[in-house]
Amino acid sequence: MEKPLILVTNDDGITAPGLRALIKTMKTIGDVIVVAPDSPQSGMGHAITIDNTLYSKKVVIDQNEGAPEEYSCSGTPADCVKLALQEILDRRPDICVSGINHGSNASINVIYSGTMSAAIEAGIEGVPAIGFSLCDYTWEANFEPALESIKKIVEQALEHGMPNGTVLNVNIPKSDEAPKGIRVCRQARANWKEKFDKRQSPMGKNYYWLTGEFELLDKGKDTDEWALAKGYISVVPTQFDLTAHHIIPQINNWDLNGS
Amino acid sequence: MEKPLILVTNDDGITAPGLRALIKTMKTIGDVIVVAPDSPQSGMGHAITIDNTLYSKKVVIDQNEGAPEEYSCSGTPADCVKLALQEILDRRPDICVSGINHGSNASINVIYSGTMSAAIEAGIEGVPAIGFSLCDYTWEANFEPALESIKKIVEQALEHGMPNGTVLNVNIPKSDEAPKGIRVCRQARANWKEKFDKRQSPMGKNYYWLTGEFELLDKGKDTDEWALAKGYISVVPTQFDLTAHHIIPQINNWDLNGS
Repeated sequence: MEKPLILVTNDDGITAPGLRALIKTMKTIGDVIVVAPDSPQSGMGHAITIDNTLYSKKVVIDQNEGAPEEYSCSGTPADCVKLALQEILDRRPDICVSGINHGSNASINVIYSGTMSAAIEAGIEGVPAIGFSLCDYTWEANFEPALESIKKIVEQALEHGMPNGTVLNVNIPKSDEAPKGIRVCRQARANWKEKFDKRQSPMGKNYYWLTGEFELLDKGKDTDEWALAKGYISVVPTQFDLTAHHIIPQINNWDLNGS
Repeated sequence: MEKPLILVTNDDGITAPGLRALIKTMKTIGDVIVVAPDSPQSGMGHAITIDNTLYSKKVVIDQNEGAPEEYSCSGTPADCVKLALQEILDRRPDICVSGINHGSNASINVIYSGTMSAAIEAGIEGVPAIGFSLCDYTWEANFEPALESIKKIVEQALEHGMPNGTVLNVNIPKSDEAPKGIRVCRQARANWKEKFDKRQSPMGKNYYWLTGEFELLDKGKDTDEWALAKGYISVVPTQFDLTAHHIIPQINNWDLNGS
């Protein structure tokens, strides 16, 4: 039987340790092709490159542990997936995995996430897809304890297939031990309390750095933030139909067409 | 009674005719402050500037028809909203309106939309918000016929308030006549069939331009694409809880924690 074809991408860039760990794990499941940004793209949300040229080239990052075929791309994570599916791959991948991101994409972070935008882009094109993120922003993050669970989740997705219009947002607690288990969750309500750090350039021009504090607004025990705080991996089925279907009747009561 | 404070932004940049038309209309409703990107940001999705400095300055774009206070910002639409709410405005706006975008943000385009990312950012911060887009990509697009409907929608949103966790995605058909009416819709299922235009630079380096054809996958008569095709303005209540709640039981049937 043919081995599954696995497209691997991320938003931290093709040399990121999280991507390298994901490649290693995926090679135990199937044939791996990597198409990933040539530089970090964090915070890019679902950006695509429409007003600029896109470069891509075959690269070798790690002679021994890399994938047989790896391509770096000058674009965003969503660009990488589009380019992979239309130009680089000669057959349709069985799954697209994105990550492992250096940092959480749980709760509201999913909105800003390049990692998840790659998974969503694959999902839009009908390819089963999962984004993986570890709640540790450092480059030296320890991915090892989570690799077995990641393998399990990908194998289950390959076995069951993904429901139409859905991708998975998987977040992993920071720990040097194996996670306690895996919980299927909903996205917690949360936001960032922004603070702008206002500075002055040597030329006397004012500028800002965006900083902020995470604010959890949700006490539910069925959320991704709850699971992560308790040491579990969180799995949130995530959709790209953004319609608030339950709100349609309410807006229909507005006086939009009358006098 | 105090007039409502209206924050106006967009993704085509502070000089775009669609923004100028929106400012003009909003001035008939309330006090207007503009914080908008200093250059076009289309296709930026929900990007934010976390690894770079952010510049902002007070500007005068149009002495007679502009807003009393306008600020340009070097960042993305989401950055503009964050900066406006935290640094520029001295009171909370009653509503944030984004647009009028030069081009459709209906159906799957919402995912890639900088216009909608500004509205969503405001929504995350608890500010009622609406993104407006005209289905005409040209700089010379005719915004005039839609301005009365836009005013109506904003007035209704101010009167009723927005349901928690929801913003409005409003798309306007291209026409030189007034729209037929306003329909509350769901986001149509659709995608882009990408084609990459492969070229070679004068230096012999291969590069790509992303192009594509829109593919409507949805025959429903309750969708935004249907309404627009029939000459109606579409209003889709849009949420940033991306959880596919109805899929959770299905994923719970996977063998994630067993042997």
